Amino acid sequence: MTKILIVGGVAGGASAAARARRLDESAEIIMFDRGQYISFANCGLPYHISGDIKQRQSLLLQTPASFKQRFNVEVRVSQEVRSINPETKTISVTDLTTGNSYDESYDKLLLSPGAAPITPPIPGFVTPKTFSLRSMNDMDGILAQIEQHHAKRACVVGGGFIGLEMVEALVARGLDVDLVELNPHVMPNVDAEMAQPLADELERNGVNLYTGHQLERVEHVGSALSLSLTNNVTLTCDLLISAVGVRPETTLATDAGIKRGVSGAIKVDRYMRTNLDDIYAVGDAVEDCHFVDHSARFIPLAGPANRQGRIAGENMVGGNVSYNNTQGSAICKVFDLAIAQVGLTEKQLTASNIAFCKTYVHGPDHAGYYPGATPISLKLIYCPNTQKILGAQAVGQKGIDKRIDVLSVAQRAGLTISQLKDLELCYAPPFGSAKDIVNQAAFVADNAINGSSPVVYPNDLDINDPAILLVDIRNRPELEKLGTIEHAINIPLDSLRSQLSQLDKDKTIVIICQVGLRGHVATRLLSNLGYRTNNLAGGFKTWTMFGKPKVNV
Amino acid sequence: MTKILIVGGVAGGASAAARARRLDESAEIIMFDRGQYISFANCGLPYHISGDIKQRQSLLLQTPASFKQRFNVEVRVSQEVRSINPETKTISVTDLTTGNSYDESYDKLLLSPGAAPITPPIPGFVTPKTFSLRSMNDMDGILAQIEQHHAKRACVVGGGFIGLEMVEALVARGLDVDLVELNPHVMPNVDAEMAQPLADELERNGVNLYTGHQLERVEHVGSALSLSLTNNVTLTCDLLISAVGVRPETTLATDAGIKRGVSGAIKVDRYMRTNLDDIYAVGDAVEDCHFVDHSARFIPLAGPANRQGRIAGENMVGGNVSYNNTQGSAICKVFDLAIAQVGLTEKQLTASNIAFCKTYVHGPDHAGYYPGATPISLKLIYCPNTQKILGAQAVGQKGIDKRIDVLSVAQRAGLTISQLKDLELCYAPPFGSAKDIVNQAAFVADNAINGSSPVVYPNDLDINDPAILLVDIRNRPELEKLGTIEHAINIPLDSLRSQLSQLDKDKTIVIICQVGLRGHVATRLLSNLGYRTNNLAGGFKTWTMFGKPKVNV
Repeated sequence: MTKILIVGGVAGGASAAARARRLDESAEIIMFDRGQYISFANCGLPYHISGDIKQRQSLLLQTPASFKQRFNVEVRVSQEVRSINPETKTISVTDLTTGNSYDESYDKLLLSPGAAPITPPIPGFVTPKTFSLRSMNDMDGILAQIEQHHAKRACVVGGGFIGLEMVEALVARGLDVDLVELNPHVMPNVDAEMAQPLADELERNGVNLYTGHQLERVEHVGSALSLSLTNNVTLTCDLLISAVGVRPETTLATDAGIKRGVSGAIKVDRYMRTNLDDIYAVGDAVEDCHFVDHSARFIPLAGPANRQGRIAGENMVGGNVSYNNTQGSAICKVFDLAIAQVGLTEKQLTASNIAFCKTYVHGPDHAGYYPGATPISLKLIYCPNTQKILGAQAVGQKGIDKRIDVLSVAQRAGLTISQLKDLELCYAPPFGSAKDIVNQAAFVADNAINGSSPVVYPNDLDINDPAILLVDIRNRPELEKLGTIEHAINIPLDSLRSQLSQLDKDKTIVIICQVGLRGHVATRLLSNLGYRTNNLAGGFKTWTMFGKPKVNV
Repeated sequence: MTKILIVGGVAGGASAAARARRLDESAEIIMFDRGQYISFANCGLPYHISGDIKQRQSLLLQTPASFKQRFNVEVRVSQEVRSINPETKTISVTDLTTGNSYDESYDKLLLSPGAAPITPPIPGFVTPKTFSLRSMNDMDGILAQIEQHHAKRACVVGGGFIGLEMVEALVARGLDVDLVELNPHVMPNVDAEMAQPLADELERNGVNLYTGHQLERVEHVGSALSLSLTNNVTLTCDLLISAVGVRPETTLATDAGIKRGVSGAIKVDRYMRTNLDDIYAVGDAVEDCHFVDHSARFIPLAGPANRQGRIAGENMVGGNVSYNNTQGSAICKVFDLAIAQVGLTEKQLTASNIAFCKTYVHGPDHAGYYPGATPISLKLIYCPNTQKILGAQAVGQKGIDKRIDVLSVAQRAGLTISQLKDLELCYAPPFGSAKDIVNQAAFVADNAINGSSPVVYPNDLDINDPAILLVDIRNRPELEKLGTIEHAINIPLDSLRSQLSQLDKDKTIVIICQVGLRGHVATRLLSNLGYRTNNLAGGFKTWTMFGKPKVNV
């Protein structure tokens, strides 16, 4: 009879316990959590604060009693595992309710302690009104601050997943919300231009955005907190949310001699084994091997944690299954927008010195003529040599999850740009387009690869270069409504053939349209006639996402 | 200068013309259509009838004038190509407005004539009140019947894509609608059990469903039509919609000596070439090679037609790109439900004598604790040898397109069941689950493959077999609400360990739960204790989708 101890009872730990039990009825399984709850819906916490999830109870997916009944797993909550002795194969546990300590022996030990919110080293930061959001208790504390202490003004520090979800939740609760982000844009884990629509959406919902600002000092002023930011900004709030990221919980592991990787998280092999015999680790505490470049990265996500738990559970009872790396598929709802990503970003690739090409496309989530179509912006990043997908990011109101999921599968399967063209996605007007935006992205990338439609990116375009002629081929009303780029002349696409005399063959013609599609038609036309031509990648829409200047017509 | 003639100006033809022009500015391109319109939104027609698409104009994606301006393609509408002379490389064209005929020569000829609605050979069927829906004119005729002739009762014959979309459109217009389908279930191109929720949805929306009925005779009775069906049913209507399918338009091609395939559609190679030099064909008129088994099938779908057109367009101007087979990805909106499929169905596989295994899973489209989650039923069919995906079908309110698209990509990429377990799909509570239903399906299939969780399918379960003990492990309130299977005893899962004495080890225990998930836990528990156990595949929900009898508790 195998005796399995599991440290941490949320995503990874609970998955492992259930899987081990399903495979081995005879194993003794004991799960420890220093909190009061196991298997709670971590990702649902912001949505109970917002009021979307009405019942607190519905966040508790399993209780110690239900887990015992269903899986015959003994769950010990409010018990903290303080140390591991790999020699004797025992752990030392302290019952937090009584203060008593005891040892427990194991045949197999799984560490699933998760990650802890980072507390930034800012003077005065920790106050009774300062909360992170990681546990049921955190959530309860925030709700009490709103409901019992009538907080009216909140400041969220950190504009990543949790920060943005909290901003939305607090706005839904009627609070005035300031968002402070050190980076130049919110959602720092995507590329700047892809996050730009989020800034608009946040402002549209009344959020005051302080990107590129650092919080320097927190002080009590009366019953409120006064926050001093760089650039001489002072904010006042009744509730301070700390959402600057998490760090893996590794103290228990490292004290026992378990190795950490370069990211600082616990190092495991693909069977979720640590360097110590019979000790496994999963979830937000472990270092991931990235699917794209096999780099060691810290990627705390619920999906991988659950799958890793299932794998460790199987392997602890004699299985031999492997975890096949992490792609970093993630999505975040920000009011009416969703932003999602898979693989590596341009920022990450640049930092890692990995060569890449990129494509921008913008198109409706379903056939434009069917009501309710909303725009999607998609960035596809691929390897210039293998043509495989390195990463993708998408932002829009609808169908964002679908496109990134499709590209996630394609990436995992190793499909090339050319093979992406062949993808056959379901089409009916309410659901998609006969040529889906994913196909479109592949067409555009393929045209760039084979040289038939060269593009220039906003950051590479010098509008003052005398060797360039900027031609905006949109129709006059579009220019009047949306603006154009300085120095651009306007020749609508449908008049291009008849107005070739305006084009100087000695110059490189840079074509501007709205999203790059008509620009492709124009680029091909001129290129076929012997002009040197570049299409502005992703059109004027991408130009504005890059924050480039526009002029009114 | 290449001279390209294109017969048919909708999806495939228009795509080919645009692509050819983008690659070759010098080619002369002439496109013929015997109708008045080119490049109209065929798939949008039902939604203008319903009123969802307000403006008729928005269905006309391109006009002859716009196509000329943008692509310098000469479009000749109301001109019918009557014959092809491959010897002289000319076609004979009749101008339908004047009756005049003339010849036109080609270097390359593309046939994209589409498919025509089948008129069933039923006495009296063709009347002024009888319409199919394929063209703008068809749509206009139906609208006139409703708006000017005040049709109040409609009968739709044929319950496939067009039939179902028309049913919904007519209900939206306030008509009383009868739907007649020869097969035992609507949407005959999916498996019966997966179509079962559609029947409920149609009835919930007031549609009178006559599945398994054949229309035998149509007669005028006063100003209405009287429809005699088998089983002595008589229906009365003011509008008769014929939606029994389409046949490829092949007369022009076969008269010229172009070969057809076994399906009756035009045979092409992967470069979209017919057997005659310099003659290409694409779209609903051509035979497809099915991705899964390379069988020759007639699969008229908009997505493939568009991609084939793009490929033929490129190849006619010197390209060398291939079309890489058709998976048959398709989706249909039926009121609040969507049903989608990819690959081959169980019916098709059985008919083709192809070995397969199948898995049923049911789960929410996103985390159950986040509001608005709706159930998805997913059927995954895979090869017992290669473990590759043969087909998938899904039905539900939301997220159906996403799941079938994910599986479509996985199928095209050749992923195995084991690899499907690793798929990393975006997760946040509003969008999915940490273990998506696609992962779940892979888990279930994998458990079946490795023998750890054997299942029995509704059609294979003999509830009167004395060697079987049926154990319903749901909770009592579920049984009281939903019913159970005759002879089943009830032992709730969480009491199973304490009530093992009720189980006879000499019998095979068949476990019944609601969707198969708890059944898997029970099956593993009992199997680990030495019982012979089977889990009812997909649980009681699948049982009822198969139309199997239930008993009240």
